Amino acid sequence: MKKIYLDYASTSPVDKKVLQEMMPYLKKEFGNPSSLHGFGQRARAGIEKAREKIAKFLNCTPLEVVFTSGATEANNLAIQGVLRNLVSQCLETKFLGGRPHIITSQIEHESVLSPCQALEQEGVAEVTYVKPDKEGIVHVEDIEKAIKDNTVLVSIMYANSEIGTIQPIVEIGAVAKKHKTLFHVDAVQAAQFLDCDVKKLGVDLLTLSSHKIYGPKGAGALYIKEGVMLNPLLLGGGQEQGFRSGTENVASIVGMGRAIEEIQNPRTALLNIKIRQLRDKLIKEILRRVEGSSLSGSKQKRLPNNVHIRFQGIAGQELATVLDQKGIAVSTGSACSEKTQEPSHVLLALGISLEDAMSSLRLTLGKYTTLEEVEKTIRILVATVAQLRKNLV
Amino acid sequence: MKKIYLDYASTSPVDKKVLQEMMPYLKKEFGNPSSLHGFGQRARAGIEKAREKIAKFLNCTPLEVVFTSGATEANNLAIQGVLRNLVSQCLETKFLGGRPHIITSQIEHESVLSPCQALEQEGVAEVTYVKPDKEGIVHVEDIEKAIKDNTVLVSIMYANSEIGTIQPIVEIGAVAKKHKTLFHVDAVQAAQFLDCDVKKLGVDLLTLSSHKIYGPKGAGALYIKEGVMLNPLLLGGGQEQGFRSGTENVASIVGMGRAIEEIQNPRTALLNIKIRQLRDKLIKEILRRVEGSSLSGSKQKRLPNNVHIRFQGIAGQELATVLDQKGIAVSTGSACSEKTQEPSHVLLALGISLEDAMSSLRLTLGKYTTLEEVEKTIRILVATVAQLRKNLV
Repeated sequence: MKKIYLDYASTSPVDKKVLQEMMPYLKKEFGNPSSLHGFGQRARAGIEKAREKIAKFLNCTPLEVVFTSGATEANNLAIQGVLRNLVSQCLETKFLGGRPHIITSQIEHESVLSPCQALEQEGVAEVTYVKPDKEGIVHVEDIEKAIKDNTVLVSIMYANSEIGTIQPIVEIGAVAKKHKTLFHVDAVQAAQFLDCDVKKLGVDLLTLSSHKIYGPKGAGALYIKEGVMLNPLLLGGGQEQGFRSGTENVASIVGMGRAIEEIQNPRTALLNIKIRQLRDKLIKEILRRVEGSSLSGSKQKRLPNNVHIRFQGIAGQELATVLDQKGIAVSTGSACSEKTQEPSHVLLALGISLEDAMSSLRLTLGKYTTLEEVEKTIRILVATVAQLRKNLV
Repeated sequence: MKKIYLDYASTSPVDKKVLQEMMPYLKKEFGNPSSLHGFGQRARAGIEKAREKIAKFLNCTPLEVVFTSGATEANNLAIQGVLRNLVSQCLETKFLGGRPHIITSQIEHESVLSPCQALEQEGVAEVTYVKPDKEGIVHVEDIEKAIKDNTVLVSIMYANSEIGTIQPIVEIGAVAKKHKTLFHVDAVQAAQFLDCDVKKLGVDLLTLSSHKIYGPKGAGALYIKEGVMLNPLLLGGGQEQGFRSGTENVASIVGMGRAIEEIQNPRTALLNIKIRQLRDKLIKEILRRVEGSSLSGSKQKRLPNNVHIRFQGIAGQELATVLDQKGIAVSTGSACSEKTQEPSHVLLALGISLEDAMSSLRLTLGKYTTLEEVEKTIRILVATVAQLRKNLV
């Protein structure tokens, strides 16, 4: 029985076209891109071609794209990098004696929240965690209210990984610009679906991940607007203009470039319409057929592939486990935090009760999701919730 | 014409057996290893199997192996991690008011030297850079002399990436233990050839790279002895026991495990004897046939695949470029620093003059190197040096 995969927000399969483009770099073109001989230069060319594709996608110059090992590293580089640079530059005059101030939201990914918390604990920065509204939308007014003289960085994700809520990035970017503070956007979940033109968005730093967009694991990128100063986290050979030392993961970078290129292919827009239709069917049918089910997040400002539903009285993890046994792979939230089995910080920030938060299921669709899979999922999910409620599983 | 690759110390091709083991994780088994469903758990199993292989190689427990994106990250995690942990723990009592002290050598890789320098500049640590002897050997007596009350970490590489000199790790480990200081070893170049049993070596932290041992790029590992405390560099989802957040690069990790397994295959020892014989032939013939040529490093304490020769009056980079045009890929030193075209810090530390340092060529052999390739290389190299000396190229 073919398994149904509905956890695309955790990771996506590698597109065949992507893998095809990677393979030479896992075989014949194995050179170290820092080497000056032909083997090295052909690997270098592969990286630079990928960089150009990403620059085109972001509407920036290739020099503004820095490859990392993934989005967690890119988010850390953005946040730790900017703050540690400020500290090392001793630009204290700007802060009137205070520490530099970061504004982020309560519903960011752990790879944004944890560096912020660490910088707080180290005494390097103070941080304001803006509360979203009940749908998970971070309001630009709340960001602006939080801005102080010593605010140096605003970091808000483009779309939430758990509930799929899309943030008003353009508006926040305008406010950040007005107050002359840097603006970082984690666009990991958004890249497949939303416009990532950094000029239109008005961002200074933007994070991308390869393995959420049908690229391989092991690659990510940080857009660093020309002139933005940050300290590297990984020091050494000075690769990536000194922003990120370490031999480049050539094959994954090449794959990421191909994956980004595919997003710009007109057929992706068509696929995204299909995904949205399937998502709408899932949401509508589940809400209609399962009593005590409710949608988390926003109906309108929502990623086209995200379904996030709470089932009253059901333990989300138990539901996910039974569905897995029945051949359907879903999650209760983000993969990173799933193992801790703690209630989602995202849902709690929305004002959802602890018990309700633990009754959640996230289904995220992708370009390989079929109508048949969706219909089967609805059938099995409805039956499983009923069984669990009658303690029949 | 098939190119001759003699730059294995920069990077090695991926072994076919390694690639074969990786492929399922680039195709069907694409799950996020943090996911609890079957896709995730099968990816998790791949990682844990690789971890066990590496633990077996190092003679440690799997819990002591932390995967990173590569050796640069592992070296940074070891050095920055230990020092930042000390700072965050405020264990200042131990230092009698001083900053913690690191001992390393002048000939370490940039990914050790640069973090040390950064920590010095930040005022977090003081660092002693021990000078090696003329052969590039770091003497245990010099390490012991440098140890002070506030010494917290000794970091010495197992074998040098440029000149192949092997350090007396067991002896240094004993001294570190005697003085109760942590001992980190960068074993990137050594792993293919030398015993990496961490108990025999007496190390607390040890760095491995995948792409130098016929594994793919994008994976490395840090052995962290149980009880050693260090702060993570990359914060977020808490993967790798919290030492290294970020979705694991499953395919590369699986490949690294397979590559390490292959080192333990008895045939590797046989291949290494063949490599040593070919290396000896290269050294002997070049020194015999090229006037004004001399070997850098140690004759005895030398990696079996390293040839590093200075050619009086010749610009090493020019020689390497011409050889590349003639189908032979070699380097002038480590790939990481090759592009800067500055004299090697390793050679300068050996007391070699700036001019002599710039006349260097490094040829590093691997398991696919043949006698025919070596003979052809000698022939072409001898002729090219003669041509360059007569300005005929």
